[in-house]
Amino acid sequence: MRTTNYLLSTQKEAPSDAVIASHQLMLRAGMIRKLASGLYTWLPTGLRVLRKVERIVREEMERAGSVEISMPVVQPADLWQESGRWDKFGGELLRIKDRHNRDFVLGPTHEEVITELVRKEVNSYKQLPLNLFQIQTKFRDETRPRFGVMRTREFIMKDAYTFHLDQECLEKTYQTMFDAYCRIFDRLGLEYRAVIADTGSIGGSASHEFHVLAQSGEDAIVFSDQSDYAANIEKAEALAPQVELAAATAEMELVDTPNAKTIAELVSEHNIAIEKTVKTLIVKASEESESDLIALIIRGDHELNEIKAENLPEVASPLTFAHESEIRDLVKAGPGSLGPVSLPMPFIVDRSVAVMSDFSAGANVDNKHYFNINWNRDVELGQIADLRNVVEGDLSPCGKGTLSIARGIEVGHIFQLGDTYAQAMNAAVLNQQGKNQVMTMGCYGVGISRIVAAAIEQSNDKNGIIWNDVIAPFSVVIVPMNMKKSHRVADLAEQYYAELQAAGIEVLLDDRKERPGIMFADAELIGIPHTLVIGDRSIDNGVIEYKNRASGEKEEVKIEEAIAFIKAKLA
Amino acid sequence: MRTTNYLLSTQKEAPSDAVIASHQLMLRAGMIRKLASGLYTWLPTGLRVLRKVERIVREEMERAGSVEISMPVVQPADLWQESGRWDKFGGELLRIKDRHNRDFVLGPTHEEVITELVRKEVNSYKQLPLNLFQIQTKFRDETRPRFGVMRTREFIMKDAYTFHLDQECLEKTYQTMFDAYCRIFDRLGLEYRAVIADTGSIGGSASHEFHVLAQSGEDAIVFSDQSDYAANIEKAEALAPQVELAAATAEMELVDTPNAKTIAELVSEHNIAIEKTVKTLIVKASEESESDLIALIIRGDHELNEIKAENLPEVASPLTFAHESEIRDLVKAGPGSLGPVSLPMPFIVDRSVAVMSDFSAGANVDNKHYFNINWNRDVELGQIADLRNVVEGDLSPCGKGTLSIARGIEVGHIFQLGDTYAQAMNAAVLNQQGKNQVMTMGCYGVGISRIVAAAIEQSNDKNGIIWNDVIAPFSVVIVPMNMKKSHRVADLAEQYYAELQAAGIEVLLDDRKERPGIMFADAELIGIPHTLVIGDRSIDNGVIEYKNRASGEKEEVKIEEAIAFIKAKLA
Repeated sequence: MRTTNYLLSTQKEAPSDAVIASHQLMLRAGMIRKLASGLYTWLPTGLRVLRKVERIVREEMERAGSVEISMPVVQPADLWQESGRWDKFGGELLRIKDRHNRDFVLGPTHEEVITELVRKEVNSYKQLPLNLFQIQTKFRDETRPRFGVMRTREFIMKDAYTFHLDQECLEKTYQTMFDAYCRIFDRLGLEYRAVIADTGSIGGSASHEFHVLAQSGEDAIVFSDQSDYAANIEKAEALAPQVELAAATAEMELVDTPNAKTIAELVSEHNIAIEKTVKTLIVKASEESESDLIALIIRGDHELNEIKAENLPEVASPLTFAHESEIRDLVKAGPGSLGPVSLPMPFIVDRSVAVMSDFSAGANVDNKHYFNINWNRDVELGQIADLRNVVEGDLSPCGKGTLSIARGIEVGHIFQLGDTYAQAMNAAVLNQQGKNQVMTMGCYGVGISRIVAAAIEQSNDKNGIIWNDVIAPFSVVIVPMNMKKSHRVADLAEQYYAELQAAGIEVLLDDRKERPGIMFADAELIGIPHTLVIGDRSIDNGVIEYKNRASGEKEEVKIEEAIAFIKAKLA
Repeated sequence: MRTTNYLLSTQKEAPSDAVIASHQLMLRAGMIRKLASGLYTWLPTGLRVLRKVERIVREEMERAGSVEISMPVVQPADLWQESGRWDKFGGELLRIKDRHNRDFVLGPTHEEVITELVRKEVNSYKQLPLNLFQIQTKFRDETRPRFGVMRTREFIMKDAYTFHLDQECLEKTYQTMFDAYCRIFDRLGLEYRAVIADTGSIGGSASHEFHVLAQSGEDAIVFSDQSDYAANIEKAEALAPQVELAAATAEMELVDTPNAKTIAELVSEHNIAIEKTVKTLIVKASEESESDLIALIIRGDHELNEIKAENLPEVASPLTFAHESEIRDLVKAGPGSLGPVSLPMPFIVDRSVAVMSDFSAGANVDNKHYFNINWNRDVELGQIADLRNVVEGDLSPCGKGTLSIARGIEVGHIFQLGDTYAQAMNAAVLNQQGKNQVMTMGCYGVGISRIVAAAIEQSNDKNGIIWNDVIAPFSVVIVPMNMKKSHRVADLAEQYYAELQAAGIEVLLDDRKERPGIMFADAELIGIPHTLVIGDRSIDNGVIEYKNRASGEKEEVKIEEAIAFIKAKLA
């Protein structure tokens, strides 16, 4: 490719709403352009990377025995009504009407469509297992699209679906797909972790997410320092502390705390250790509960895990925090002064809270706290549950080692769906006994466009992106200095260009009438791994200059050896 | 690929609403499945063909210097308002609202989005010409989707857009793209014609369509028997007959014609030559006309060309036929009794009508016609225009030869847009003189998914599809007879399968426990070009059987020579 025949579109500055490196660099390197909120055009440089990611994903899917199909973006609403997700899926599901006023959705995922297809095409266990995938445009109407292509409304996803006669067969294929995912991220050269995950709105029994590790990641992932255990923090169990409940050492005391609306203020104003405080959070109770509201009590330095809370039978799903007015109607105190003593509603305490003694909590009277509360002496302990996010140093739930926490970008998610969709949509086959048996399903997603951004998050410097050879938009850039005036430079540049192309190497010839500094800056910004600099002076010495983007190393290479040198680098 | 790991999904029968061969065969061969009206899932066999078409189109676009990008499916309405097409584009433009109630469209085409992109990225003539393309999902909300993937709502299109400083540069690139299109359809092995076309809702000055010739084609295309002239019938000029207006031979006569509501009835009831009759069609007049309605008069055996009529300044666009009630308000007669004599509205006569003498037409009184009407004696001739479709044997508008008519399937359409969009959206660059100059544009579409259907229309027989080697879903199918019982058959089938795969040849191994007849029928239905039949009996003779799908020829090939034989066939 010649730069003059290309849409390079590099920029010196990124707009101020681009806050993470990949978003800034994808704009600056001319990879993407925003059309509207959450809608991006992929420019040539971005698309070249996207297609390489796509190809690796496709190859590994095929190697895992998955067969490619392509389903429509626009899906009829009746299938979503049949699965029950027409009502359950939130505002991210864009519901539209066609010219005949019929309801459709822009597909955020394709469980319904694939189940509709397979229930019609497959009727015998002999046709199972079946493993189908597509790589296709999806749409989720995000409330707040952000971080460039990391969280967009329209995006490219690989989604695979598998169909089985039973759970045992599903588990076998699930492992095959798990392994394929590992190969994908290995080949892409990404540092990643597979973690145990919550199944969320997709549903099902078991699930793993694949996270690219990056400081800017929206997810916290935890792993043991002594085992393979790794999980999304949403899903990581916080074990009960391995300590006994200590005996009380002081009487419970009602204290005026007019300046302690928050835990931080309570701790600093009254010189209490934060581990001796608790937070009392009021949420809606589930229908099976006798109360409208229920309190969740966690230690002052811990965070509520909303997924765990929502999954408790006593708590309404989705998790809904009570308004202050609802709390005041019942408790006669505001959210800053709540606690378990004399609380007129049921409460559940976190495992860590259950082993606390001599602790402080709101007195359910505005501007007052109790100090030195002790369970069973001052208030009944009652129900205990795992309510909090794990923290660094917690014991690993696997029993081995302690937990570390890292930030991750979710780039893949696989699910053992079981019969969730097949049951609702009556997708059954005749089994070996000639009886109808509902199929067991798995589904497996990869965020193709997000991978491009995640790879940049993991590999960039102050000058721009640093691609590896596998997904770089071009392998080599030729930078001829003063090409327009020097025939020798122009001839050698053209010769290299032709030879590299003939060797099947993707090369960009920067044939613009630009100053060398601009050409170098663009090459570094775009992140092309290998640069060949051709100048009159070095030709005099029989050499050209090679630059490596990742290491920054420069090397003089004999003119006649340059192509072999590059081939060796790419081998 | 092994059949048991594949979704073959062949069917004996096609549903009754599939009326053309490609629709029937794509369903029967398991290439597509209907999800909803105009929405199809591409099954593995269909997608394999689609991807091959896509690859050839991509390669030829790149060879023509076009650079690939990818624009969103969902487009903000404001760009369509800016170009003026938000109002002009009909119901095929699906207008949707997002969760924030903002207006968007599902892109039927991307002129607005690309113009928005280029006006921001390009500011100097030095960056021109620019040639960008994408291969992407598009949506048109067809009133009546039909013929399978031939006319769907969601489809895959290659659309390219070029930007130039002036018309001369556009014309040069237009020719480059025209040539690329010819290479695409040549490589695909299709019988096609490039024809002069109307620019329709896309707009612009010059335009060509590429049609695959097929009886089922929705378009009529015309060409000269003595020159290169070829045009869509919409666009083909009907020259004025090279005859003088003959003198009248009889007096005009008012005749009772109670049983002649149509031309056919008039001709048969009153024994008149159809060439001596005219049809009077009443349409809405344009705003610049003094009348609300205007009459268009063509010969009884001719068809109105609606595009030509609509393009007349006196006629409202889009062409709108008057309701009977509107006609009766003015004329006091129904549509079956209209004619030029004493017609209380302006009329335009077709060139062929202007040279008629002693002809018959309605008398503008119900159940009455005038016979032996003569221009200027009985009624003023007035305005003449080209109003009709050409017919076989007409003189070619190029001046050489006469016209033939064939049916075509439009698979490509290229346009010299000029400044239609660039002007409306203010897409300008600085020219050599440092002044702002609006860019000149071209656009170039290929219906990727429609090509698959068109190829089938052109090549099938009673047993199924006949693919050429270039776009066949598989090059070779191995049909082992009694594989489950004969180790020799199974071993040889596996050996061939491995060897063909190793040679990079796309091969399907039919490893089902099916009767040979079923496997042969499926292979023919799907249309795989080359079949290798492996059976115990032929192994005894040291041979296997080769079958050619296109020619139907069978040949015995020595076991050890089979792979080389296939390689030679595919070379």
